[in-house]
Parts: sequence; structure tokens; C-alpha cells
Amino acid sequence: MSNNTATAIQSIEWREDHVRILDQTYLPGREVYSDIRDVGRMWEAIKKLRVRGAPAIGIAAAYGFYLGIKELPENSFQSFFIEVERVAEYLETARPTAVNLHWALDRLKTTIQAHKDKDIAEIKDIVLKTAKTIHDEDKRTCKKIGEEGVKLVGKKSKILTHCNTGSLATGQYGTALSVIFHAHEEGKDIHVWVDETRPLLQGSRLTAWELKNAEIPMKLITDSTAGSLIRRGDVDMALVGADRVAANGDVANKIGTYPLAVLAHENDIPFYVAVPLSTIDMELDNGDDIPIEEREDDEITQFNGSEVAPKKTETYNPAFDVTPHKYVTGFITEKGLVEPPFNENFEKLFE
Amino acid sequence: MSNNTATAIQSIEWREDHVRILDQTYLPGREVYSDIRDVGRMWEAIKKLRVRGAPAIGIAAAYGFYLGIKELPENSFQSFFIEVERVAEYLETARPTAVNLHWALDRLKTTIQAHKDKDIAEIKDIVLKTAKTIHDEDKRTCKKIGEEGVKLVGKKSKILTHCNTGSLATGQYGTALSVIFHAHEEGKDIHVWVDETRPLLQGSRLTAWELKNAEIPMKLITDSTAGSLIRRGDVDMALVGADRVAANGDVANKIGTYPLAVLAHENDIPFYVAVPLSTIDMELDNGDDIPIEEREDDEITQFNGSEVAPKKTETYNPAFDVTPHKYVTGFITEKGLVEPPFNENFEKLFE
Repeated sequence: MSNNTATAIQSIEWREDHVRILDQTYLPGREVYSDIRDVGRMWEAIKKLRVRGAPAIGIAAAYGFYLGIKELPENSFQSFFIEVERVAEYLETARPTAVNLHWALDRLKTTIQAHKDKDIAEIKDIVLKTAKTIHDEDKRTCKKIGEEGVKLVGKKSKILTHCNTGSLATGQYGTALSVIFHAHEEGKDIHVWVDETRPLLQGSRLTAWELKNAEIPMKLITDSTAGSLIRRGDVDMALVGADRVAANGDVANKIGTYPLAVLAHENDIPFYVAVPLSTIDMELDNGDDIPIEEREDDEITQFNGSEVAPKKTETYNPAFDVTPHKYVTGFITEKGLVEPPFNENFEKLFE
Repeated sequence: MSNNTATAIQSIEWREDHVRILDQTYLPGREVYSDIRDVGRMWEAIKKLRVRGAPAIGIAAAYGFYLGIKELPENSFQSFFIEVERVAEYLETARPTAVNLHWALDRLKTTIQAHKDKDIAEIKDIVLKTAKTIHDEDKRTCKKIGEEGVKLVGKKSKILTHCNTGSLATGQYGTALSVIFHAHEEGKDIHVWVDETRPLLQGSRLTAWELKNAEIPMKLITDSTAGSLIRRGDVDMALVGADRVAANGDVANKIGTYPLAVLAHENDIPFYVAVPLSTIDMELDNGDDIPIEEREDDEITQFNGSEVAPKKTETYNPAFDVTPHKYVTGFITEKGLVEPPFNENFEKLFE
């Protein structure tokens, strides 16, 4: 796949001694890049969704972790590692649902332990190198997801997607959007229905922006319009990403994913979830154990600073929902399509 | 039911020689009343949703029709009636989906025909009187819908509702909200989940406002949060209104109703539609024949004047969807609950 404007977007970039992120809260109006030089700023950037999307959060956390440990005293490994764990725990509190954040930090801690006999200064360099590796691997993984997923897309296809799963949400290309970019690149005649994705409009603000840049035909819809499109046969395939997948195939993803899956099931259209293996959490038996982040009232009661609900209106504002595996047709991963029974087939992948 | 602040809201009022409406586009921030003195302004008020809700549109159209005919020349009935039909056709173009608008205008034209031998000046007075009757009847009907519907509400009940179906949408009390007002008035321990209802946020702006005024416990949610609430057992009943019901029970209502109905069905909770009989269109065999109004892109791409999607993003923005009758548990009407088979049971009501 060529590196055209759309897919070449660098939402996160390591620059010598700091991270540069494309601050997604300003999109689509302005392209604002922010330089992040300490772990506190990275925590804030993840919490406030300046950087978002499960794989991108993993990458950002890896660099943030390095920023958090690089100034630590270098006298004893034991006291160094106590601080290392504090930095990791702190970063984990930024967003609880996406497993990639946990996965990246875990990998870095394991790497540190594996090199405990080396000089701490050297260990720090290894951490930075590993963070860069996580970043590079994600780009390759996302490309592979696109190449695998495109096999499922018909020559002429109407695809419904939710939230943002593109270059902005990953190292590059994306997960579900990588499939869409690859289908377009291969000359397939695709049309994309983009759910706006309330409350934070990642569909309108980010996915529409990425698809416009790539000149892929699309129309924006409110989240609750998807149902009638599916019912009347105007959707050939629903394609989403995920923030965490349990061992049985239950999927935690952006709020609104579960209704789409039920609607797809009810109307006999395939519902695919595109994820890197790092999003699959084999430590969780099922989706009921996935922690679901609840966010602030004002994401729903305010818009652009003005009130759209009566003062003091309470909300229930979970960022994610859980889709039971029975509604999932298959998972598109860097190792190919995974079909039911998911538990068994995931285990084979991790062998 | 007592006339407390909540249910005593007059969204439309006839005042001597003009109509006063509560302009719903300013809610919940400001209570702005507008005086409407000609049919053009009424057309604009209906089109721009200053007055909205199927029953309220019927009432507004009836008064608007009178404003449109009251200055017509009084020389011959034949030429008078040609103009009468023009006024009715014009008003019908304001919003195509709600049948109440058509129903009210039809009733007024029939009334005119029935009095064709009278002086035209007298006919005009009869039209105004009939418009007032339509208004009064709607208040009584909505009260009755509340009294009938409350029988279905458990002593402790979590009710999910969509869009706005309260005093703002009707002559008074509302349809689905009338059931909720009556349940609260009877001391039932109810909690209401209010869908914000994109794109125009009738849930956040209007339903939350009405429920707050009535001090009924509620929480506001994004439309796509309803699914996970239903799945985890936090909803005992879904309760909506309708803009038009076909003879077989298919329901046209605010976009997002169909997904709710499917989710309720999938999770075995009852899905009720509260409507006056005037919303049931026995001339339409099924929902496929109901015209669905499509609205402008900027309802989705802009928010409060600022862009939330890339420039020139196209949308698909239908104001309504159609819910097949198989998902409807029952219709709550002023003549009681109607259960399947709807076609047969509706016919009995209209006998």
C-alpha cells in the first residue's frame, strides 16, 4: 500500500528526546501538534483523548513510560524498579478499558526484568528502543490486518463503521479502517457509512477526515440511523475495531457497538471486528470482566461550551459497551481471519 | 391528574386572533414565545421544528389553516374552496411523515364541505371552532392515553424513552410521556432513561426539561447507550410515541426507534408505542409506504454554528425510521391497549 496522505498520517512520532502527537481534540478544524516531554503530560493527553484508539494508546503509553523513567536515579536496580512500577501504575489509570495500554507497559516491565543485570542507563536505552519497536510493529500489524481483511470485502461493497480506527488510532493505517484503505487501494468500489459516534464524535471529526483525505466515498450518519440502513439492505458488512477482546470473543468497543452487532445479526449481515492480537486479553474469560470507563456528564450535556440539557442533568456516560461473541462473525487479525469457536481458535494463535 | 407545572405547559395557544407557540428551538436555555399571525409563519414554525411532535403539528396546522383562509374573498364557495385546498397543500409540504398534519387538514376540509351552503364568513368561524376542538380533543386524548398506559407500568419501573412525546409535543400531557407523568403522579417509583435523540437533541433539550420540571428521576444517555442498558437488565420497558402507524402496526417514529425495538425484542423487554388514534393511518397497508422526511446535512455536520465534520461532508439524515410491527408489544391508545394482531384490532377500534 502506498504511503498516500491519508495513511501516512503520523498521530504519534518520537523526535530525538520527546514525543510529538497530533492533538485529536482539535480535528477536523485544525491540525495541532503537541510536544510531550514528561509522563504527566502524556497521562493527560491519553485521559483527554488528545491521543486515542487502543493501539495508539499502547504506543503513547510506551513512550510516556520512557519519559517517566529516563530521569530516575541509576544507583540500584531494586529501587529503580520500584519507581518503574509506580510510573506504569500511574499511566494505567489514564484509561482502564483498552488492554493495549496494559499490554505495552507489561511488555516494557518484562524487558526491564530481562536486562536487570545491565547498567540502568543501558536499560533505559533498551526501554526506548522497545517503545520504538512496539510502534513499528503496530504499523506492520495494521498493514497486515488491512491485507487480511480486504479478502472479505466484495468488489462493490457498502461498509458501515463506528468510531475511529484509522491512522489516528494506531501507529499507521488503522484496524477496521486499514481494511477500508486497502479495499480502496485495490480499486474495489466501496462506499462507507460513518457513524458520527456520540458523545465525542470520533466518526464525524476523525473518520470522516481520514476518509476525505483518502478520497473514499462516504456519508456521515447519526449513530441511530445505522439500523434502518441495515434493515433496508444498504449495508453489506459492519466493520469495527475493539479496545479489548476477552478469550471467548466478547468485545469491548466504543459505546454503540453492541446495538450495531445486534442489528447486523437480526438482518443477517456480517459483523467483523478488526484487531491486532495485542488487543485480545486471554486472561479474561469473558466480557463481563472488562472494566468499563465512565466519563463526565458534560460530554453529553454540553456542546462546544454551550448547554444542551437543563442545568444539573445527570447522565450515564460509559465510553464502551460489551458485545457478546455470538454476534461476531469473525475477527480480522494480523494472522488472518479468526472464526468461531473463538476461544479455541484464539488459543491456537497464541501457541 | 393535577395541572402541575410540567403537564400544564402550553406549547400552542389560540389568543383571540393569532396563535402563540413556545418556540422549542430555544429550549432548554430560554422560554421564548412567538406570536404567529399568518400561514407562512406557521409553515416555517413547523418546518423548523419550532413546534413539533405529531399531535402538536396537527393542532398547529389546524390553526395555521384558519390563518391561511380567514382573509380569503367570500364571494363564491367554489373559488373559496380552490384556495382552501391550496392552503392545505401548502401546509402539508412542511413535514411529510406525521399523519396528524394530514389528518387535521383533511378533517377541516371535510367540515368546510359539510357546511358549503352556509355563508363563507360563517364557514370560517366554524373552521376556527373546529381547530379549537381538535386542540381540546387532543388534551383529553393524551390524558386518556396516560390513564390507560399507567396500567402497564410496574410499581418500581425503569422506563426508556426516545425523542420528546410530552406536553411540548401535544396539546397537553403527551403520549409516551403522559404515561410517565401519570405513573409518577400515582406514586409509582419510576426512573426514566432519556435518549438524547440526535441530531436535534429533543431528548436532552425537551424531554429532560419536562421531566426535570415534573421532578421525575431520570438520567440522560446517548442514543447508543440504550443497548447496553437493555442488555444488562436496567430497562423494564421501552416506551415511545409515533408519527404515523400503518394499518398492520408498522411504526414510523423518530430515527433511532427501530434499533431500540430490535434491542428490546432481543432482550425480551416490552416495547410499547403510545399514540392517539389520529396517528394510525388505516389507508396505508404497511410501513414501507410511509414517506420519510430527509433533512439537511448541517443538522449533523454542525453544532451550535461550529463545524464538527470536515467541510462538504455529505450526510444521510432521515428524520424517521420504520419499525416493523413484529417488534411492537402493543399500542397504548385513548381506547386502551391494542395487542397483536394489530390490523384486525385496529379495525375494531375504527368501526
